[in-house]
Amino acid sequence: MSQAPKYLTGDSAAINEFLDKFDVFLLDCDGVLWSGDHVFEGIVETLEMLRSRGKRVVFVTNNSTKDRPAYQLKLTNLGIPSNVEEIFGSSYSAAIYISRILKLPAPKNKVFIIGESGMESELRAEGVPFIGGTDPALRRDITPEDFKKLSDGSLLDPDVGIVLVGLDFHINYLKLSIAYQYLRRGAKFIATNLDNLLPTGETFFPGAGSISIPLVNMTGQTPLTLGKPSQAMMDAIEGKFHLDRARTCMVGDRLNTDIQFGVEGKLGGTLHVLTGVHKREDWEAENAVAVPAYYADKLSDLRGATS
Amino acid sequence: MSQAPKYLTGDSAAINEFLDKFDVFLLDCDGVLWSGDHVFEGIVETLEMLRSRGKRVVFVTNNSTKDRPAYQLKLTNLGIPSNVEEIFGSSYSAAIYISRILKLPAPKNKVFIIGESGMESELRAEGVPFIGGTDPALRRDITPEDFKKLSDGSLLDPDVGIVLVGLDFHINYLKLSIAYQYLRRGAKFIATNLDNLLPTGETFFPGAGSISIPLVNMTGQTPLTLGKPSQAMMDAIEGKFHLDRARTCMVGDRLNTDIQFGVEGKLGGTLHVLTGVHKREDWEAENAVAVPAYYADKLSDLRGATS
Repeated sequence: MSQAPKYLTGDSAAINEFLDKFDVFLLDCDGVLWSGDHVFEGIVETLEMLRSRGKRVVFVTNNSTKDRPAYQLKLTNLGIPSNVEEIFGSSYSAAIYISRILKLPAPKNKVFIIGESGMESELRAEGVPFIGGTDPALRRDITPEDFKKLSDGSLLDPDVGIVLVGLDFHINYLKLSIAYQYLRRGAKFIATNLDNLLPTGETFFPGAGSISIPLVNMTGQTPLTLGKPSQAMMDAIEGKFHLDRARTCMVGDRLNTDIQFGVEGKLGGTLHVLTGVHKREDWEAENAVAVPAYYADKLSDLRGATS
Repeated sequence: MSQAPKYLTGDSAAINEFLDKFDVFLLDCDGVLWSGDHVFEGIVETLEMLRSRGKRVVFVTNNSTKDRPAYQLKLTNLGIPSNVEEIFGSSYSAAIYISRILKLPAPKNKVFIIGESGMESELRAEGVPFIGGTDPALRRDITPEDFKKLSDGSLLDPDVGIVLVGLDFHINYLKLSIAYQYLRRGAKFIATNLDNLLPTGETFFPGAGSISIPLVNMTGQTPLTLGKPSQAMMDAIEGKFHLDRARTCMVGDRLNTDIQFGVEGKLGGTLHVLTGVHKREDWEAENAVAVPAYYADKLSDLRGATS
């Protein structure tokens, strides 16, 4: 069905043609710009080249624990120049969705958060009321009194209309029990992203999708999800940047998040770089979840353009 | 395919015939003998009647948090006479399976537990070495040092060959991260039971299956499961009591645990009582997961036998 992806590495003519087709580049970060704490060689220069040609770059990440300023600080610490408006994370995306698209009528629009401070600050910036999150009162063991008060409902806030779940390093039985009660009473179930694993160091840790899955298992409900490849995130990006999808390219290392995100979003193009999770054989496979339009060994191969 | 279940309530002849067919009754507890803290009327007398007719009763529960003595104490506090040998819980079942069937060679037979003290004491009684469980050192937030030491493996015990997961009221990110590392290194994945919900008071809380599901989501592996309806539990019960399956009857209120457990175990019969989760219409449905051989409004209807 799809055409074979065009290989850009070392082909200046192809790179020039590729760059001329797009005004906006949506960049996945981990596996594209860096791995762990190691920024790939030539990345800073490549971003400079794109900007000098008048391209807009947007850093699109499923990371839910950091708000935009914190994520910008991370980029700065890694030596990558950026401004906060170029950053689009799954918590920001969730806050936009809740405040501008879902728009539950107050006061029943309160959010119960399972997640870290980045989720709180993005909701706060959008003026969305919330409880839970980093509240120290919930960072404790469940007690017999909690069982009673969750059973009779007296521990619950009647204004909670949304349960928002992201990565929470302080997940516990009490938080899961409270979130379940809200869902059982009809609260909307929203997840920042469903990544099952969090790549860290040489291994993996539980990702946001492994925090929300007990609630999926308990309720039989699937959350509305904001992170890639959910098109709710694409809609939020389009709404913010007023981009022309036909002149936008998604760049990533994963077929089932980044490339699928761009293909389903009907962007003008997708570029797969081989510095992360997926390789050539993954889209060459019969049952590939998504096939990119372009591929390159690494993002910095785009510097091979003639200027 | 199946015959219509025989209704016993109020039919002394049918009850007599039913009682004569069996020597052993495997009794589910919650929903059969009691609900919450309320023992159903006539239960104590019914158990007395069964014993006076020379029947063996076995209390079969998926509860993983209590060991047999603790569960017996619960029965005693509810006014139900029992002895510890009549009790078969999913933690005991898991301990038996690990020590007598799986039999990993020492020292690589150590178990990493996610769960409460009942799991520890049942493993201890079977002489199986373990770590984790109620260890206070794991009841804390994950630290940057944990991330490093889990990545390089220095936090892990090289002798752990099994990850056993049951209901854990103290579940946290650190425990899930450690369990995942063991599974990633090839440890066997065992669950006491997969109940997604824990009925408590007027509502539900996360069940054992909602504690293990993040690990299922992270690894793509399904655990070997001991609780009903797993036949690993039936094998363990048979091994202990040397029962004649043809003269054994499973009694329960749930089709997808109790009745399925008895049907798949090829027991002589199954009795569905209508005092719990499932009703007549559940096995009358086209796609019923299991159909009982007998049913009664309540267990104490068996007192309608002529003596």
